[in-house]
Amino acid sequence: MSAPHTFAGNPLDRGDVERRDPAWLASRAEHPSSRFLPIWRLEVPVTTTAGPALAWLSATELKRLNLAARPIFLGLRDGVAHFAVDVSATEDPLAPFGRDGAIEYAEARQAATLLSVDEAGIVAHARSQIDWHARHGFCSVCGQATEPARGGQQRTCAACGAQHFPRTDPVVIVVVSDGDRCLLGQSRGRLARAGRYSALAGFMDQAESIEEAVRREVREEAGVEVGAVRYHSSQPWPFPSSLMIGCHGTALTTEIRRDDEEMIDVRWFARDAVRLALEERNPDLALPGPIAIAHHLIKAWVAGEA
Amino acid sequence: MSAPHTFAGNPLDRGDVERRDPAWLASRAEHPSSRFLPIWRLEVPVTTTAGPALAWLSATELKRLNLAARPIFLGLRDGVAHFAVDVSATEDPLAPFGRDGAIEYAEARQAATLLSVDEAGIVAHARSQIDWHARHGFCSVCGQATEPARGGQQRTCAACGAQHFPRTDPVVIVVVSDGDRCLLGQSRGRLARAGRYSALAGFMDQAESIEEAVRREVREEAGVEVGAVRYHSSQPWPFPSSLMIGCHGTALTTEIRRDDEEMIDVRWFARDAVRLALEERNPDLALPGPIAIAHHLIKAWVAGEA
Repeated sequence: MSAPHTFAGNPLDRGDVERRDPAWLASRAEHPSSRFLPIWRLEVPVTTTAGPALAWLSATELKRLNLAARPIFLGLRDGVAHFAVDVSATEDPLAPFGRDGAIEYAEARQAATLLSVDEAGIVAHARSQIDWHARHGFCSVCGQATEPARGGQQRTCAACGAQHFPRTDPVVIVVVSDGDRCLLGQSRGRLARAGRYSALAGFMDQAESIEEAVRREVREEAGVEVGAVRYHSSQPWPFPSSLMIGCHGTALTTEIRRDDEEMIDVRWFARDAVRLALEERNPDLALPGPIAIAHHLIKAWVAGEA
Repeated sequence: MSAPHTFAGNPLDRGDVERRDPAWLASRAEHPSSRFLPIWRLEVPVTTTAGPALAWLSATELKRLNLAARPIFLGLRDGVAHFAVDVSATEDPLAPFGRDGAIEYAEARQAATLLSVDEAGIVAHARSQIDWHARHGFCSVCGQATEPARGGQQRTCAACGAQHFPRTDPVVIVVVSDGDRCLLGQSRGRLARAGRYSALAGFMDQAESIEEAVRREVREEAGVEVGAVRYHSSQPWPFPSSLMIGCHGTALTTEIRRDDEEMIDVRWFARDAVRLALEERNPDLALPGPIAIAHHLIKAWVAGEA
């Protein structure tokens, strides 16, 4: 991998030391140089005035919204503090910009196709953090309310003392090969459509290694046994907060026994058919685009690099 | 890696299909062939009667405890259902065994050094699951009580409908090298003691790739910049539920600027000194034992395989 995957490459220094200091955080939340990214119902503001870019607010602009939402500290760049703030409670999230210019709120996948690698990385971080805070207002240990700490990298429960940290869910995603064929599947879900196939994938269970998870997922979804597993690269996937761990695997068996509850279809595809599909010249097979790590895993296999 | 790491290699089929069927689960929870592993305050029962092995209970034996605790389905082996059950509420967790024989409850690290690779893998799974359920009795979204589902692979909130899944926290752990030296550190915490060093490690943040997390952690803890990152292997670490992602990295800079809050010391060590320490013949340097992935990362570097 030369270029980072989409959603990796966040350029902000997450400020591990600075975020331990509540007084520093409070002063930065008021500082005129600080930048605030409003997140509205998990969408981000994109301006197209001077080429697509994230539309940031100043502390003064943010105050126009009159919201109690506490900013989450994302990190520093050239000494400037960057925050994300959940503005979902407003009905007019464009109001605080208070200036002309084409600004629209966009879903994170769509934004990532418009923005620079750097800004797509920031969107991933902001979206995962905001979603986690929105879903962790209460303590899972005792049921009482929790409060954010360390600029948003933690929530604490005053009632029982429990500390809660943002979660990242590891997912294995794998292109399994049998010589000149690879195993791709169509899973159920909102992105399913005829002819669209991708690498097999699934959330890791507790207490298994990456290699075990790859073998289990392929066995469960396709009934195929996998021998050697080779790590390729990884990608953060902020829906809401997965870590895609991309691998290649070598098949030990070839007969497919599909899990009908999870999969619509699983099939072996010849290298030539997959190569054509990557070039969007195969009418029978559509593959994920370059935004997804699956695309790069498939491409590496076609190129014989896996 | 030929042999799996300690805590990997769980031989149970996690029963992804079977656990979707509540009636099947209920019948197995009563079945005479089923086996129940009591977990008492996160410790596991080990019998030494016929070589160290886990001490399992039958459904009938388990009932002697008169506990309301619901069994967590671990998986199947040769058609036999295996469960873990949290018996922390009893003061006498040995009582249900009701037979002679040397049975003792052991902490999971200690148990892993006694048990087979297979059983250490089961301990990891059981410990992570039981701990997660114990700390997730309430819904983080709305604060109401949650109930287990799918044999324990989920908890659901009847009040707001939220589904909660066991968490696995990815941790990067890395041996960074600069030619014939490698970077090891002493972190603060209960395992710190003079002369004991290990690979640098830290929890992944939301929205970063493995490679980014490696570079960030080494920068934060040691002030050293890392270029190429190579994945080596991974290990489940059930304290409470980490996934150790083991890597090697190549240093781009060598000057150390330590994070004093997290680290007591960080230092470059010569290959010969590290080799002696692995053989436990270096009085100035103690390294983690083979139970930890750090040992194997260091060993691979010493052998020139990284």
